[in-house]
Amino acid sequence: MIANTPQAPYYAVIFTSIRTAHDNGYDDMSHKMVELARQQDGFLGVESARDEIGITVSYWKDLDSIRKWKNNAEHMIARKRGREIWYQSFKTRIAKVEFDYEFEKI
Amino acid sequence: MIANTPQAPYYAVIFTSIRTAHDNGYDDMSHKMVELARQQDGFLGVESARDEIGITVSYWKDLDSIRKWKNNAEHMIARKRGREIWYQSFKTRIAKVEFDYEFEKI
Repeated sequence: MIANTPQAPYYAVIFTSIRTAHDNGYDDMSHKMVELARQQDGFLGVESARDEIGITVSYWKDLDSIRKWKNNAEHMIARKRGREIWYQSFKTRIAKVEFDYEFEKI
Repeated sequence: MIANTPQAPYYAVIFTSIRTAHDNGYDDMSHKMVELARQQDGFLGVESARDEIGITVSYWKDLDSIRKWKNNAEHMIARKRGREIWYQSFKTRIAKVEFDYEFEKI
């Protein structure tokens, strides 16, 4: 779903990735990490899609909440397994959302 | 592919969308708009994935290049058809990428 974020400014973490062929436990871990992220202070929402590449954008109140999530112990373990097993390559971009607009068909 | 963007800062346009069931001409127009975007001043790259939702992130040098692309005549026609035919809903977020990092498996 499209994340229902509050009025800008807020932060986006754009995570773009290419997977390896190794699937062992990826979906479970991915699901678990989203559920864990939702419980963190400053978490505002997440959007995710994958075909040839995967793009996951998580939204956060500020840089401090992003830093705390990055250093979350369970998340650090997941990220280590990501580098070892699941991802061929990825790029993470930290960006400040300055404004946004939306459309909904009636 | 993961976009090979230059050193931050630069801008990201995060376009998250839910499609209608109407397909007429969408793929052609989508492809054409990416090719047209590549020709614009300040364009730095684009990443796109779709399953239940679609996420397209385009990267730009600055806000001025984003504004010019938004007002490009062919792009305006495509965006109008998007609202009329192809998209049930979408959200566009304009964000300044402050820093980034990447991983590549050896």
